[in-house]
Amino acid sequence: MRDLSADSELRHLSLNTATVRKQGDLLEILSAAGRHGISCVSPWRDQVQAVGLDKAVRAVREGGFRLSGYCRGGMFPADAARRAEERDDNRRAVDEAAALGAPCLVLVVGGLPQFSRPGSVPIRDIDLARDQVEDGIGALAEHAAAAGVPLAIEPLHPMYAADRSCVNTLRQALDICDRLDPDGALRLGVAIDVYHVWWDPEVYDQIARAGAGGRIHAFHLCDWLVPTKDLLNDRGMMGDGVIDLPRLRRAVEAQGFDGACEVEIMSDHLWSRPMDEVLATMIDRYRTVC
Amino acid sequence: MRDLSADSELRHLSLNTATVRKQGDLLEILSAAGRHGISCVSPWRDQVQAVGLDKAVRAVREGGFRLSGYCRGGMFPADAARRAEERDDNRRAVDEAAALGAPCLVLVVGGLPQFSRPGSVPIRDIDLARDQVEDGIGALAEHAAAAGVPLAIEPLHPMYAADRSCVNTLRQALDICDRLDPDGALRLGVAIDVYHVWWDPEVYDQIARAGAGGRIHAFHLCDWLVPTKDLLNDRGMMGDGVIDLPRLRRAVEAQGFDGACEVEIMSDHLWSRPMDEVLATMIDRYRTVC
Repeated sequence: MRDLSADSELRHLSLNTATVRKQGDLLEILSAAGRHGISCVSPWRDQVQAVGLDKAVRAVREGGFRLSGYCRGGMFPADAARRAEERDDNRRAVDEAAALGAPCLVLVVGGLPQFSRPGSVPIRDIDLARDQVEDGIGALAEHAAAAGVPLAIEPLHPMYAADRSCVNTLRQALDICDRLDPDGALRLGVAIDVYHVWWDPEVYDQIARAGAGGRIHAFHLCDWLVPTKDLLNDRGMMGDGVIDLPRLRRAVEAQGFDGACEVEIMSDHLWSRPMDEVLATMIDRYRTVC
Repeated sequence: MRDLSADSELRHLSLNTATVRKQGDLLEILSAAGRHGISCVSPWRDQVQAVGLDKAVRAVREGGFRLSGYCRGGMFPADAARRAEERDDNRRAVDEAAALGAPCLVLVVGGLPQFSRPGSVPIRDIDLARDQVEDGIGALAEHAAAAGVPLAIEPLHPMYAADRSCVNTLRQALDICDRLDPDGALRLGVAIDVYHVWWDPEVYDQIARAGAGGRIHAFHLCDWLVPTKDLLNDRGMMGDGVIDLPRLRRAVEAQGFDGACEVEIMSDHLWSRPMDEVLATMIDRYRTVC
């Protein structure tokens, strides 16, 4: 297990730019990250679009940043009228990830079609949504492989099953990988976010399975607060919650994962604090509690 | 599958008294239930204690009510200093259930000890909490069997893993049943609440497993709202959310379950409405969307 307390150069830390999305645009976030010695980031698509892809690519290059991922493709479930929109949108996400040099495109796969692609005919059939997810990933996988952008399915916590992701466990995500990409040639894999998987009684078995298949593309950190006051935007800074972060990191690294510890925290509280304060706290916690 | 639309006498409906807990005490709730032709209820322990066990027993008997369960025992994880308190508390819950004639005691098993039994030394080890749950159920099971009160483990949604229940899937609950009560002699079983299990990719397989083992002790209804604004008290009236209720009921009844459809809705919104309005809506939805 890597000793993060000794990582003076923050070689294994990545800032997911959603963590400080309310404090500045992508260029301001990159500038702040640079000030704090952070050299790895994972930008969100809307933040890239807000400044323009070309400008984002240039800022990443000129700032000397590496990427740990690009957030996000997905939202596959859609009714027939919105299918082409979904397919085009996801191919563009892959192309943007390639332009930015991202090592993977994180997939938040979507829930029921009416939430995944608004305007779609409402249904209650989550199994159908799951089928649509698998079809969508299948339709995207070759384009992604050709672009050199591995797809990373991120299972989301079951509380998002209806509206954000009907893939809710690592087992589900890995089952999809195994069906669509049995030999690993398409480089389908998973993004493991502690927030979404920490509760799962199977999490350690499935981390081992993911590792054995070479499918761990990303590892995301934050914490689960008690009480959690909001389903979406009350995630915690590492150390402020109840997740056994070192045990999860140890399990992931035991599989040979040597990628970044990417800090992704959606939090109304943290978004209300100055960007430099959040980054300083994040670096401190990265070194002391993860 | 039973035809609820034809159930003019509401023979298969039960009112979990938490659904209208803010509108009156247990005696007022029983009185309102009677007015609406509801003859089956599932009371909560704090509501029983508020009016006194003897008075509650008398009101149930004189009102001609059946029970579909008693909510709730559990909260097993505790540090050593609080172990005896937990054991005593749960034996009393069994005795109250027996006095009330409840067909099962629903177990909400608890999360980490510091939340399950406040004052316990805080830990982050959810596996240890899970071991303590199993030890606690094991310690209670013979007393419950002797009292004629089957224990019904209710897996709670994973969003409650930290503070309310570290048993989060039917698979987990049934694994505990199988380990502690392999031959069914102790009548360990499960309470299946659609709110907690609807998202689970394994739910139908595990319902079949529960049925095969004779372990379905209770079936609870409400709905999952989108958006859900509060983790605890924003559950939906049946039909207002996204759960495929008929499919889940069909699966449970296909296993031979002929107990009550117990409506349990914790909702700040519904608690703000008049009791008679909530009960009338509940009866209408029971007949039309479940």
